[in-house]
Amino acid sequence: MQKAALPKGTRDFSPEVMKRRKFITTTIESVYKKFGFDPIETPAMEKLSTLTGKYGDEGDTLLFKVLDSGDFLAKADQEALNNKDSNKLIPSVASKGLRYDLTVPFARYVVQNQTHITFPFRRYQMQPVWRADRPQKGRYREFWQCDADVIGTKSLLCEADFIKIYHEVFSTLGLGNYELRLNHRKALEAIAKTCGFEGSFTALTVAIDKLDKIGWEGVSNELLSKGMDHSGVETLKQLLNKVDFDQQALDLLSKILTDSKEKDIAIEELSTVLGFIRSTGIRLKLDLSLARGLDYYTGCIFEATIPGSGIGSVSGGGRYDDLTGIFGLKDVSGVGISFGLDRIYDVMLAADLFKEVEQETKVLFCHFDESALLYGINLADKLREAGIASVVYSDRKKINKQFDYAHKCNFPYVAVIGDDEMANGVVQLKNMATGKQEKLTVTDLIERLK
Amino acid sequence: MQKAALPKGTRDFSPEVMKRRKFITTTIESVYKKFGFDPIETPAMEKLSTLTGKYGDEGDTLLFKVLDSGDFLAKADQEALNNKDSNKLIPSVASKGLRYDLTVPFARYVVQNQTHITFPFRRYQMQPVWRADRPQKGRYREFWQCDADVIGTKSLLCEADFIKIYHEVFSTLGLGNYELRLNHRKALEAIAKTCGFEGSFTALTVAIDKLDKIGWEGVSNELLSKGMDHSGVETLKQLLNKVDFDQQALDLLSKILTDSKEKDIAIEELSTVLGFIRSTGIRLKLDLSLARGLDYYTGCIFEATIPGSGIGSVSGGGRYDDLTGIFGLKDVSGVGISFGLDRIYDVMLAADLFKEVEQETKVLFCHFDESALLYGINLADKLREAGIASVVYSDRKKINKQFDYAHKCNFPYVAVIGDDEMANGVVQLKNMATGKQEKLTVTDLIERLK
Repeated sequence: MQKAALPKGTRDFSPEVMKRRKFITTTIESVYKKFGFDPIETPAMEKLSTLTGKYGDEGDTLLFKVLDSGDFLAKADQEALNNKDSNKLIPSVASKGLRYDLTVPFARYVVQNQTHITFPFRRYQMQPVWRADRPQKGRYREFWQCDADVIGTKSLLCEADFIKIYHEVFSTLGLGNYELRLNHRKALEAIAKTCGFEGSFTALTVAIDKLDKIGWEGVSNELLSKGMDHSGVETLKQLLNKVDFDQQALDLLSKILTDSKEKDIAIEELSTVLGFIRSTGIRLKLDLSLARGLDYYTGCIFEATIPGSGIGSVSGGGRYDDLTGIFGLKDVSGVGISFGLDRIYDVMLAADLFKEVEQETKVLFCHFDESALLYGINLADKLREAGIASVVYSDRKKINKQFDYAHKCNFPYVAVIGDDEMANGVVQLKNMATGKQEKLTVTDLIERLK
Repeated sequence: MQKAALPKGTRDFSPEVMKRRKFITTTIESVYKKFGFDPIETPAMEKLSTLTGKYGDEGDTLLFKVLDSGDFLAKADQEALNNKDSNKLIPSVASKGLRYDLTVPFARYVVQNQTHITFPFRRYQMQPVWRADRPQKGRYREFWQCDADVIGTKSLLCEADFIKIYHEVFSTLGLGNYELRLNHRKALEAIAKTCGFEGSFTALTVAIDKLDKIGWEGVSNELLSKGMDHSGVETLKQLLNKVDFDQQALDLLSKILTDSKEKDIAIEELSTVLGFIRSTGIRLKLDLSLARGLDYYTGCIFEATIPGSGIGSVSGGGRYDDLTGIFGLKDVSGVGISFGLDRIYDVMLAADLFKEVEQETKVLFCHFDESALLYGINLADKLREAGIASVVYSDRKKINKQFDYAHKCNFPYVAVIGDDEMANGVVQLKNMATGKQEKLTVTDLIERLK
């Protein structure tokens, strides 16, 4: 006998969980659609060469690799095999990997299908991704990303659309207390110049990315040790305050930053975005300490959190100017965001935000004997014809067992059929919440349950 | 530069294809729901030990195995490594595999979650599965199965429900010409007894399973060579005719089969199923040559095809009395079916059954200058608030370029905004199909597009 068990970090989803997850994905999907995004899907497996080198060295180790079929040892790298070098052996025995996110597969998709695509291309994609990460709270080895991107335009209207999408998705889910933070890659570069750290951009972003964890004291010590002078540190401190994203914030930023091309771009683009959303009343934060995923982001950067949830980012995104370049399509700018379904689920569950899961099956037909069973089958067919989900209790058991089943399955109604009912062409309908019973004809039954 | 390419046998799905696929999955899902089935999902990866040995030796070679993370060679089976025995090495370097179907993961799910499940459990599950098969027409390495099962009851009402589900799904998809064939495992066993082949059941089913390929001549020769006598072959020939599933067919079957326990069970169960569906008028075939997946089926067996499509089975299923036994839960009977999304798609595409894909985004706002752009953004927000999907053309381009985009994207309407429109608080709405133009206020615009 085998033990029924799952690989570490993976999960089954029961009907109850599935219905809640579908509430989230349906919400996100319907907002994406309202903003004119179209669905695509890509395969779970990509060529390993498509994935490696795109997520940094750590990312490469977190990729799940799929073993080649057949006699893979025969074509394996013999030197790596002899040296027991697992890492070096991989490319010769595993030519496929599971997708790590939806962004790289999307870039690959765009390049491969470029002749069929009308740009700007607005697509959404909601699929699982896999990472061999250590499982912990809010982190799974299989989890869903819900992405939307616009590719083929530099227009900042897209950034504005995404801010509105964030707002509508979170509001609809009951997470109206979300915090959306905005930054701009060029603002970070202008900060580096202003603080005399132009040549140490990575050291700067690595340090400020730790602000949450080590505090300002830690960040400033790190930067001083890396050679930033005291006046640079003081200037930086003024800039790292998270503030409301408004004209005042941009004016202050403009005042503090020394003149540079990067400053001009950042201020102009942020102003444009602000202009596009001003009439909506949506509030977000300008957070110059936000330095996520800088490797491919080149313009605006987004991150959304749910304050007090104890779970980090639930969504992020930004503009990238050359994501498709690696696959040979140059100079195509895009911008996108990604909602983490599993983290949103965890936050909503902890905050008790799910409405009670509704049992979509409206009625269970219970019966006393064979002829009542047949009578019930007939009625259930009529209900289904009218679009009402119904089940006939499948076995010949005592009526109280049938009611037990209805209770446990949360069916809102039970229709009981006995000799009297059949003789009179009716059913006895019991509302399981109120206990109220009534005799109804089929026509009335359909009316009642519709 | 890397070439943008996909692993063999896998596919991207464009928005056009996605919308058609969603039409199929939504249809199947809504029928499953109407019959009281609830959704579950299981992870893409299962423990390799959960999967191996469940699909026969060939199945084992077709499983995609996922390489263990880290220094997998250090813990590899050294003997297998030294002997370059790829097959023997697998369990020590790959402890996970991609699911091969949804049935074994479902059995694992039921056993693992048995204390939380109310039986009979009606579940549906629609997810991709992976097989390292040689890609060919109708056969992909990643494809979707849409399964429904009832587990925890022997009631033949479930079989009747599935027959109705087949009928409604195929009719709704426009595949009303489908052919559903039914057989019963016990009928096959009774046939073996009748034909004096009781001890060679596998030889019998292997032979008749080839009827389509090698014809009756081939089958009878094979059976004669395996030791069936001429009278047995003659009897068998009478039985293998595909006939309408009705009382007459059962009477004939009963007359031909010699008495046995298996015959009694088969006739009784088939009669019961017939009784449950009689009032529906649904037609199916009794096909005693249907011998699919006999390894775990123990009662009724189903297979659906679309005659003339050139593609084999698009759906199959049956009753299994001990699927969960391997994971330690004995004596739980279940019955289920599985629709193959990809094959149904291929059949429908070849038969030109997809309606034109509707562009869900109703309107593109086009603009002559910056202030018209802002005006359009505002209007688009109002439309979205009313639930109408709309896009503002994101770039400042000539109006004909904007119209080109609307054409290529199949937007049904274009709303043009110029100085006149802004001054009068209206938009110029053009119906792209008829060419008709009209000036509308926002309120009228919303009314028109709703």
